[in-house]
Amino acid sequence: MEWTRAMRYLPYSEWDAETLLKLQAQATNSSYQVGYHIRPTSGLLNDPNGFSYYNNKWHVFYQSYPFGAVHGLKSWMHLESTDLVHWQDKGLALGADTKYDSHGAYSGSATVIDNQLFLMYTGNVRDQDWQRYSYQNGATMDETGKVTKLDAPLIFAPDHVTEHFRDPQILKHRDAYYVILGAQDKQTLSGKISLFKSKNLKNWEDLGYLDFTDDLMGYMIECPNLVFIDEQPVLIFCPQGLDKSIAPYDNIYPNMYVIGDKFKFDAARMEVSQKQLFNLDDGFDVYATQAFNAPDGKAYAISWVGLPDMSYPTDDENWANCLSQVKELSLDAKGRLLQRPVKAMADLRSDGQVIKTDKPVNGRQILVADADRNYELKLTIKKDQVGTLHLVGNTDLSESLQINFATGNQASLEVNRAQAGKQFASDYGFTRKIDLPKNEDLELDIFIDNSLFEIFVNGGLKVLTGRFFGNLTNNQIALTSKQTDKLAYRGTYWRINHI
Amino acid sequence: MEWTRAMRYLPYSEWDAETLLKLQAQATNSSYQVGYHIRPTSGLLNDPNGFSYYNNKWHVFYQSYPFGAVHGLKSWMHLESTDLVHWQDKGLALGADTKYDSHGAYSGSATVIDNQLFLMYTGNVRDQDWQRYSYQNGATMDETGKVTKLDAPLIFAPDHVTEHFRDPQILKHRDAYYVILGAQDKQTLSGKISLFKSKNLKNWEDLGYLDFTDDLMGYMIECPNLVFIDEQPVLIFCPQGLDKSIAPYDNIYPNMYVIGDKFKFDAARMEVSQKQLFNLDDGFDVYATQAFNAPDGKAYAISWVGLPDMSYPTDDENWANCLSQVKELSLDAKGRLLQRPVKAMADLRSDGQVIKTDKPVNGRQILVADADRNYELKLTIKKDQVGTLHLVGNTDLSESLQINFATGNQASLEVNRAQAGKQFASDYGFTRKIDLPKNEDLELDIFIDNSLFEIFVNGGLKVLTGRFFGNLTNNQIALTSKQTDKLAYRGTYWRINHI
Repeated sequence: MEWTRAMRYLPYSEWDAETLLKLQAQATNSSYQVGYHIRPTSGLLNDPNGFSYYNNKWHVFYQSYPFGAVHGLKSWMHLESTDLVHWQDKGLALGADTKYDSHGAYSGSATVIDNQLFLMYTGNVRDQDWQRYSYQNGATMDETGKVTKLDAPLIFAPDHVTEHFRDPQILKHRDAYYVILGAQDKQTLSGKISLFKSKNLKNWEDLGYLDFTDDLMGYMIECPNLVFIDEQPVLIFCPQGLDKSIAPYDNIYPNMYVIGDKFKFDAARMEVSQKQLFNLDDGFDVYATQAFNAPDGKAYAISWVGLPDMSYPTDDENWANCLSQVKELSLDAKGRLLQRPVKAMADLRSDGQVIKTDKPVNGRQILVADADRNYELKLTIKKDQVGTLHLVGNTDLSESLQINFATGNQASLEVNRAQAGKQFASDYGFTRKIDLPKNEDLELDIFIDNSLFEIFVNGGLKVLTGRFFGNLTNNQIALTSKQTDKLAYRGTYWRINHI
Repeated sequence: MEWTRAMRYLPYSEWDAETLLKLQAQATNSSYQVGYHIRPTSGLLNDPNGFSYYNNKWHVFYQSYPFGAVHGLKSWMHLESTDLVHWQDKGLALGADTKYDSHGAYSGSATVIDNQLFLMYTGNVRDQDWQRYSYQNGATMDETGKVTKLDAPLIFAPDHVTEHFRDPQILKHRDAYYVILGAQDKQTLSGKISLFKSKNLKNWEDLGYLDFTDDLMGYMIECPNLVFIDEQPVLIFCPQGLDKSIAPYDNIYPNMYVIGDKFKFDAARMEVSQKQLFNLDDGFDVYATQAFNAPDGKAYAISWVGLPDMSYPTDDENWANCLSQVKELSLDAKGRLLQRPVKAMADLRSDGQVIKTDKPVNGRQILVADADRNYELKLTIKKDQVGTLHLVGNTDLSESLQINFATGNQASLEVNRAQAGKQFASDYGFTRKIDLPKNEDLELDIFIDNSLFEIFVNGGLKVLTGRFFGNLTNNQIALTSKQTDKLAYRGTYWRINHI
């Protein structure tokens, strides 16, 4: 089936319910479906939206196109949780059904205002010539889950931006509301973050572009998010077309962050002494991460595991992508960002088994001969070693997801998915590599969810996330090394329950 | 909206997907929705179907009309589980889309044949004059969840039955397959159980009506199920129009069982020395229970919590009903049927707190002042006492689900839902009562799931199930009695997690 523009933007009311029921069954029955991550009920999932805490529950929404693995007419689908781990699907919350969002209820955020969850999102509109218009709209959700859209947009695009003006994050600071937005400057066609202010949610003052870097942030910034960690501002965003000399990255578009010293809202400036941009995730498939400060002050992030303009093997099954697990953000003593699983993730563990250094057999050490498709593996690999950790391996390890590590003077970790199953995203390579501290033990906390891996390195200093689509009977976890007989490691393996 | 016949039987392909998405969101957002029972994704749920064990998983399907709280064009929706407690929704499995099931894929059963799950169901067909025809059809489900219907019916209705001929349960016995079916005899218009036999699933021999009682089983029997417990046959079925002098019951239609001594398949006879029929559930809302023998020999049952020809308050929200929890069936030393929660139900417990006899305050003993909406309460009430246990009570207990008990020489238990919320099914009364053994401690294992109660009495000798639709802030559990100061009891309360 060819996805014409007319089909992709067909109103949901013109699709038939039998097709939707079959698409929902196809997604849930997929052998590649994830079991403890948020996944689309049907069709395509992209950005997390409206990540928030309201009415004693955590809320997250996702961008959904329910009728296929393509970017069509988008809505917000809603889930809620009491622990950031077990999510209840609450279904369609915000559709594209007004003149200010006729071509998609695009990404946005949520915050509690007057005992309601206030949703702010981008209304995507196309005219007859397919010219795009972007409106920043508001809606409220009450305690029963009922969503009511405001009659008119909160913010219209200012003259100095192109039609690429989206992804509002609404923040309360002192006695005012601020919104940061991804934008493209009309003059320079460069990526910017726009800042607006309002005292009453009605009249919005354009504070201009956020001053946070002297570098050119490509041609567009998407999904800007500001959180405060120990009072330090951390800005997370997705620059498109970023020059790799400014910050290296391997994916089609990166999801970057910068740690500031102070965020001056009214001056539209983030003071940054450490100018470096970092990849939020050093793996293959993370984009559009959304982060927010919960009422307890902690900062949490959740990512789209998927990338724009990319095909995935499940496209053939009419569904695509999932969200990452929720990651708690903190700063270590050296001021470096840490991303860690939330506490309740441990509630999913069962059947824990201790992994310890064993005698090698045929040049290999089998950690778990017959692992589940959903598991967590915490593993400490001793310093001064070189080898490969194979996940989801077949019997002879000719197929596996390879983690190549070196923990000596040359210290690095490389994830290689070339032999992990069906090949995809080949233009962007099959490996991702990070440096490690020299001559130190390597601490890995690895989550496998059927077709998804999330690897937390050294307490969350680095995270590598990606998808793989291999043989479902490949369930060996093993270590290989030229020096197998001196490999030293210890750890724990747990089966992880479905949510 | 008036549900005309034309609307109820509109093909799913003529409903629009936006309507379905909104109905799904409405069902999941309902404040009355259950949290640890199987519930409809949207619309109306009725009979459990195809309860089975296949490919290392438990399977159950339910009769679904997805577009409203009415009995319209029915399909089978599928769920699977590894523990009979945590169920994964697998969506639409069997729709009404052939000439042999054009007006509904009605109830049926499943058994493993040749590494596939063989589904046998009633195809409901109406002709232009709305004359009904019932076909007993077959389909197979493979390990990926793909369902393939057989080209032609397995069994056509024989001449001696009316068009009321449905609900096949397929059983393997020695080297042949047998099917028992609910039927209405054409001559007498009385309720019967039909028995068929086949060696090859193609040619079916009509063995006639099952001889298991001399009494008239009303005008129709629905949903017959045969299980073996300790080699004794137990026949579970739903006689409609049963004379209450044969077996008393309070609901519009009962769900009865009879314990036999021996089941002679080829003779179409169940030897029964203890002729008495019993209500499988002594509460308000259980019907169409489906039971089967698992590969381990154990017998499990799951019930529709809902009744035919009945309205429920959630009809206004366009959804209705749920399934019961799975009940393990056994026989006690006296040969009496026991129904008990399965072992894994205990995995849902959290925050257990011990309940013990306390001093009464204002004539009442508060067991839990602020209970959850999802909980289990195990309570032993000592013998020789009279009182009322209030569940989901408001502050002054003017509203509550009342369990009136007497454990002395007059020994009985009565559930009264008159003050438990919105009134419904008023024609059938607000109370259900069972006798208890005299002068014995009363053992209750009570499950509350927001708008559902399941009360297991004395180790499962009796079960009382029902719905209630009260104020969601009514969360007091308390005991009242004229002799409050001598009430003696002990127990445990647990919060029960959502599945």
